[in-house]
Amino acid sequence: MPDSSKQNSVLDSSATAKAANDKNSQLQQSPFLKACRKEASEQTPVWLMRQAGRYMKEFREIRSKVTFLELCKNPELACEVTVHAQETLGVDAAIIFADILLPLDALGFGLDFVKGEGPVIARPFRSDADLKAMPEVNAAESLSYVMQALKLTRAGLKANIPLIGFAAAPFTLASYLIEGGGSRNYENAKMMMYKRPELWHALMDRLVSFTIDYLNAQVEAGAQVLQVFDSWVGSLSPSDYRQYVQAHSKRLLESLDKSVPVIHFGTGTSTLLPLMKEAGGDVIGLDWRVDLISTWNSLGNVAVQGNLDPCVLLADKEFIKLKVTELLAQTAARSGYIFNLGHGVLPPTDVDNVKYLVEIVHTYKK
Amino acid sequence: MPDSSKQNSVLDSSATAKAANDKNSQLQQSPFLKACRKEASEQTPVWLMRQAGRYMKEFREIRSKVTFLELCKNPELACEVTVHAQETLGVDAAIIFADILLPLDALGFGLDFVKGEGPVIARPFRSDADLKAMPEVNAAESLSYVMQALKLTRAGLKANIPLIGFAAAPFTLASYLIEGGGSRNYENAKMMMYKRPELWHALMDRLVSFTIDYLNAQVEAGAQVLQVFDSWVGSLSPSDYRQYVQAHSKRLLESLDKSVPVIHFGTGTSTLLPLMKEAGGDVIGLDWRVDLISTWNSLGNVAVQGNLDPCVLLADKEFIKLKVTELLAQTAARSGYIFNLGHGVLPPTDVDNVKYLVEIVHTYKK
Repeated sequence: MPDSSKQNSVLDSSATAKAANDKNSQLQQSPFLKACRKEASEQTPVWLMRQAGRYMKEFREIRSKVTFLELCKNPELACEVTVHAQETLGVDAAIIFADILLPLDALGFGLDFVKGEGPVIARPFRSDADLKAMPEVNAAESLSYVMQALKLTRAGLKANIPLIGFAAAPFTLASYLIEGGGSRNYENAKMMMYKRPELWHALMDRLVSFTIDYLNAQVEAGAQVLQVFDSWVGSLSPSDYRQYVQAHSKRLLESLDKSVPVIHFGTGTSTLLPLMKEAGGDVIGLDWRVDLISTWNSLGNVAVQGNLDPCVLLADKEFIKLKVTELLAQTAARSGYIFNLGHGVLPPTDVDNVKYLVEIVHTYKK
Repeated sequence: MPDSSKQNSVLDSSATAKAANDKNSQLQQSPFLKACRKEASEQTPVWLMRQAGRYMKEFREIRSKVTFLELCKNPELACEVTVHAQETLGVDAAIIFADILLPLDALGFGLDFVKGEGPVIARPFRSDADLKAMPEVNAAESLSYVMQALKLTRAGLKANIPLIGFAAAPFTLASYLIEGGGSRNYENAKMMMYKRPELWHALMDRLVSFTIDYLNAQVEAGAQVLQVFDSWVGSLSPSDYRQYVQAHSKRLLESLDKSVPVIHFGTGTSTLLPLMKEAGGDVIGLDWRVDLISTWNSLGNVAVQGNLDPCVLLADKEFIKLKVTELLAQTAARSGYIFNLGHGVLPPTDVDNVKYLVEIVHTYKK
């Protein structure tokens, strides 16, 4: 006599596997993942950096009760704002609510977000002693709240909506860590490159190793896509990028789970884009300082994302339509374009304008 | 009988004219002015943006007694810091000590420099009413202290050292005026472009007219070269530059006294450089984000200035020598290169490093 309980459990598990496969196939056929693979699609996919953010009333309400870090560290709340933004805007992907600097908290450097000042690192990294004192920390464990948020969010999102995990690229992470916060000139980071190259490279190595584990754990926890934010790499000359950064970004990008596409993003990168493409990534992020089509042509065989100036969303609807339609017309003939801003949604943006942008992208006939 | 007093006066005046011509010929044959005209020269000329600044002990001593604005408005002190910096460093040109935002003070918008915050404009420009209320002000009169400083400085400088006058380009001036100070995203300036283009263009028109008079008066007061600072224009997309800025910069540059060369400078401008060259200027400023030689080749027949990352001066002498020599070797074969940083000298810079840089440039054998 068959063991029915065992049979049931097998049936259950095979049903779960089938559901997971269906879900996976729905995800894989989503316009967003198709664009990452440069496959043709009826519709241009669209999502926005910082789509869950201060410009949204519901987000500000949550933020009035918890600090920014508390929000990042609370998986239920992080899931709530992530799913809410995706559903409210109707965008083609969700990005997990988190911050690129959380690893600095996990590594014990003392991260805080000070009103009006942005991120502040209590103990900036400046010396060999700081390298020696840097603890060996397990990324997935020390940032388990991000993994938990990803699991909850994956379960909470519609089956056809890809979830994006992310981390800072090593230059951007190191520059915050060395400067102790945001910077205009990156004087301390560049001084370390120029005067202490071996210390710089050792730090980059450590950050890359941590970030590989962190991002791969995010895939395991439920992310279908990864974005690597080299937000401030545009402060470097091409030769400095080549000498101090490229190999580290390359090691990171080459070591990520091959089952998911990776978006390699930066701003002010017009002269760095060929080198960033060499470093890796299935999709290259473009800000508004470059002409989309000529830049894409010069990059060659890769998908691209972005290009709209976030300030366009501060204008009126007529102007937004004009600018969005221009980009859609330019990109209609080629597969592999993901509509996005060149950087995050700005706090004074009207939510209605963002919804309107998504509507224009979705109703545009190629 | 001849009127000897008249004869003497004629002799005096012809002697003065001869002295002025000699002086003028010495100036015209200086390596700096020859490079502006793309003429061959034994030596690469060098000067540095913000060469008179906080990184110098003598400057800090003066600044401990007067505010920044008081220093700008005191012709004797402005002359002193200008001449002192040129002589201390041994650079090939002096730039008059002043600030690009002084016209906003002259125009009554309320300019102040707040410690740790930078420039603050008390009454930012936002509306038609602000345009209507903008006074008609004579540039040379309202900024007579700058003219006085130029006269004193011209008289105080060695006869072979050109004196640079300067002003902000209209975008950079307008963006400070609209934002009310420095900005990361230029949200208010771009909002005005996008939502109130006629108001934007009217403001730019007014600023250009004022700046034409201001710069031409500087030539009359003793400047041999003019630099137009479009420091923050790199925040714009190429299409926005073309639509909202280029014609205004062009009108400014075309209306300047043809007897002096003009340097057209910006940062983060890699994708804007061809459009800036179209707008005008005898010399185009390059920051460190572009590769010098390929950029110069693509710009064609124009002199160029800049390209060294100011952070290089925070490194040690060996590294400085390496980077400076690289640029000198790259440019040795072509006439029309002026050595400079890509932006101003940073406050933590060691004066000895700046002197060392000048020495390397001057002792380099082409």
